[in-house]
Amino acid sequence: MSVYERLHDLRIDLPAPPHPVGAFVPGVQAGGLVFLSGHIARKNGASWSGRLGAGISVTEGQAAARAAAIDALGSLHAATGDLDRIKRIVKLLVLVNSADDFTEQHLVANGASELFGEVFDGRGLHARSAIGVAQLPLGSCVEVELVAEIE
Amino acid sequence: MSVYERLHDLRIDLPAPPHPVGAFVPGVQAGGLVFLSGHIARKNGASWSGRLGAGISVTEGQAAARAAAIDALGSLHAATGDLDRIKRIVKLLVLVNSADDFTEQHLVANGASELFGEVFDGRGLHARSAIGVAQLPLGSCVEVELVAEIE
Amino acid sequence: MSVYERLHDLRIDLPAPPHPVGAFVPGVQAGGLVFLSGHIARKNGASWSGRLGAGISVTEGQAAARAAAIDALGSLHAATGDLDRIKRIVKLLVLVNSADDFTEQHLVANGASELFGEVFDGRGLHARSAIGVAQLPLGSCVEVELVAEIE
Repeated sequence: MSVYERLHDLRIDLPAPPHPVGAFVPGVQAGGLVFLSGHIARKNGASWSGRLGAGISVTEGQAAARAAAIDALGSLHAATGDLDRIKRIVKLLVLVNSADDFTEQHLVANGASELFGEVFDGRGLHARSAIGVAQLPLGSCVEVELVAEIE
Repeated sequence: MSVYERLHDLRIDLPAPPHPVGAFVPGVQAGGLVFLSGHIARKNGASWSGRLGAGISVTEGQAAARAAAIDALGSLHAATGDLDRIKRIVKLLVLVNSADDFTEQHLVANGASELFGEVFDGRGLHARSAIGVAQLPLGSCVEVELVAEIE
Repeated sequence: MSVYERLHDLRIDLPAPPHPVGAFVPGVQAGGLVFLSGHIARKNGASWSGRLGAGISVTEGQAAARAAAIDALGSLHAATGDLDRIKRIVKLLVLVNSADDFTEQHLVANGASELFGEVFDGRGLHARSAIGVAQLPLGSCVEVELVAEIE
């Protein structure tokens, strides 16, 4: 089954890559790797703003991480032309806008990690770092960047 | 001298890779590179929790960074099957759980950097970023991720 | 036009790479990629300290990001021997020392991104993540790390 059939079954529509707010691009291929920009979580087209441990629950954070991961998929499609050429999702960096005492960044990050497992099966199994940051662009509650391997 | 003889001389026992708390793996190889997940510092099997500049001293932070680096070595061994195939430790990202006014993340990170120098000599000399973060998973005081080159 | 002629036209003097405060190096090449260490912003040879949203304006942060990017260029020159061998600036990570309510990390990061566009034209167009962190080494207001592709 192709990645696109899988996305259809999961009822996921690939968004167009976001317009970078700055002098950069959503993704760059170098050798056999694709490096994607950090994608902030968006809701209804605007920043999904807020902070974990201060108004945003783990469940909402997971939904935001999943949304950012879907946006990243859209950029990966745009950067590569064909998601079926992805050999492996290699590495995720999941940044969680965190109150001082919020320590469940790993649970929030699962919202992104599980999306890649659903879409790519074994090829979606990646290395990952989850960290709690002071703030993110436009006040977003989550940001996801990734490295993928391409044929 | 093999890396394993060196580890023996340094009295370092390689731990089994930690069970990821999420849908990801400790390390992924892509082309000639191995990307490792962020490894939080652990003490007696649990998170080595706390914050630099608020209860955790630089000396304790360095010990935690060294402990996280040893855990990362265990994962690198598991991901590659043979640490003697490592051509270079390429890049470290050291995340330091930091109070607002703590500015010695680079000293804390040396606890990890020096471990790789001891174990791999010149092949252990890496690029590095050290940053101060708002929080880390399970409240850990330090997290270490790395990229290595493999033959 | 060579990169060095371009730097001359831009009146940019490449600095010598900073002395790492720790057991690491400014840059490491692995395969066709060069990984650079995080470079903190410096002013008059010392840390360009401060926090965005608490005394440092976006305009000053952009100048600091540009200064850190120029230092990174100096390290890239030292690590590769010839900036004309750079095929692409692949990925930037821009860390912004941020007050709790500062959400314009992307604008600050443009100070670094635009420098690479000026120096490398299309080859300078990169993927990027911008994040707000609790603190940086020596209290610097900005830190820039990057991955480049080399021939």
